[in-house]
Amino acid sequence: MVPWQRVQPHHPPRRPAVGDAGNRAAILAAATTRFTDLGFRDTTMRAVAADAGVDSALVHYFFGTKEQLFAQAMALPIDPRGFVTAMLEAGVAGLGERLVEALLTVLDEAGPTNPMLALIRSAATHASATRMLREFLTSAVTSRLAVAVEVDRPELRAALCASQVIGLIVAREVIELPPLPTTDRAVLVAAYGPALQHYLEDPLP
Amino acid sequence: MVPWQRVQPHHPPRRPAVGDAGNRAAILAAATTRFTDLGFRDTTMRAVAADAGVDSALVHYFFGTKEQLFAQAMALPIDPRGFVTAMLEAGVAGLGERLVEALLTVLDEAGPTNPMLALIRSAATHASATRMLREFLTSAVTSRLAVAVEVDRPELRAALCASQVIGLIVAREVIELPPLPTTDRAVLVAAYGPALQHYLEDPLP
Repeated sequence: MVPWQRVQPHHPPRRPAVGDAGNRAAILAAATTRFTDLGFRDTTMRAVAADAGVDSALVHYFFGTKEQLFAQAMALPIDPRGFVTAMLEAGVAGLGERLVEALLTVLDEAGPTNPMLALIRSAATHASATRMLREFLTSAVTSRLAVAVEVDRPELRAALCASQVIGLIVAREVIELPPLPTTDRAVLVAAYGPALQHYLEDPLP
Repeated sequence: MVPWQRVQPHHPPRRPAVGDAGNRAAILAAATTRFTDLGFRDTTMRAVAADAGVDSALVHYFFGTKEQLFAQAMALPIDPRGFVTAMLEAGVAGLGERLVEALLTVLDEAGPTNPMLALIRSAATHASATRMLREFLTSAVTSRLAVAVEVDRPELRAALCASQVIGLIVAREVIELPPLPTTDRAVLVAAYGPALQHYLEDPLP
């Protein structure tokens, strides 16, 4: 198992006290409601804490960053911020293939009940979920990629990559368009990797 | 206006008789129900005719092919069969850019009430709509592309292209991921075109 494959729970540095389980559940419930109603950007850790009736330090203590809280509230199989950071550590060279390889690993391990699919399904039909996914992708994925990749128009390049990643997930996992679900992972990596690399590095007009 | 931009209604060669409007509506209603319940593959023109209480010749007379009937029943802005055929007429060279240019034209003309989006939204949440979209994409798009493009693994290549087209539609039109909705069409064509061309032509392992 490599770091980006699972949400890394934010391990509290001290032994949980009695009542922590209830606080934790209250924070998650408040976070889910806030993210769904207000989107990712306008949800603050402070407001989640207030809704849950706890101090905001406790929210950070249990969940770490806002992205990590989001990943836990949405039951995502990965912490996308950690995922993107881990992907970028090895630089832009070969990033396309690494991204596809990692994504397919996550998808195959998560299986058909994958909460990432639930989030995409919701985003297709509910305006609030659409906004949530858009703001989250922008904040946690594309803007982070944009900072790390030293090329022109980094946000556009990140969005181009995101569009192919979303399309791969929808076509392979939701629509199950043949032969994608039965195609060897190595073939998909070899096909999609260079396309993502093209989005990341090739000149744009 | 070029041929693929709009559904070309199948113009009946004779003047409509009294009662045709009712028959036409009955056929469309029957087709919509059949496609939704049984998917694209298992829906026959004969069964649609029987449901509508008309002769199957009348279904062909009003709507032409099964793909054209589907496009009209789903209120699609284009007849995908005609679209793909028109795209392929000029050969594989430059097909990637032509596909993206044509797709963006259709999307921008159809606007936010685009029935293509409604179909994708339904496919994300309803198993019957998922099956319908899968079978339709396979029958009308990927298998047709597969026949026309003289390369190895044509169905995989067509599915790779379809996954990027779906991802572009979902990211730009549904999620509205910045900066895709506001990026110049020429820039998107220059970015996505070579990626689709790579899927169509480059060696696969």
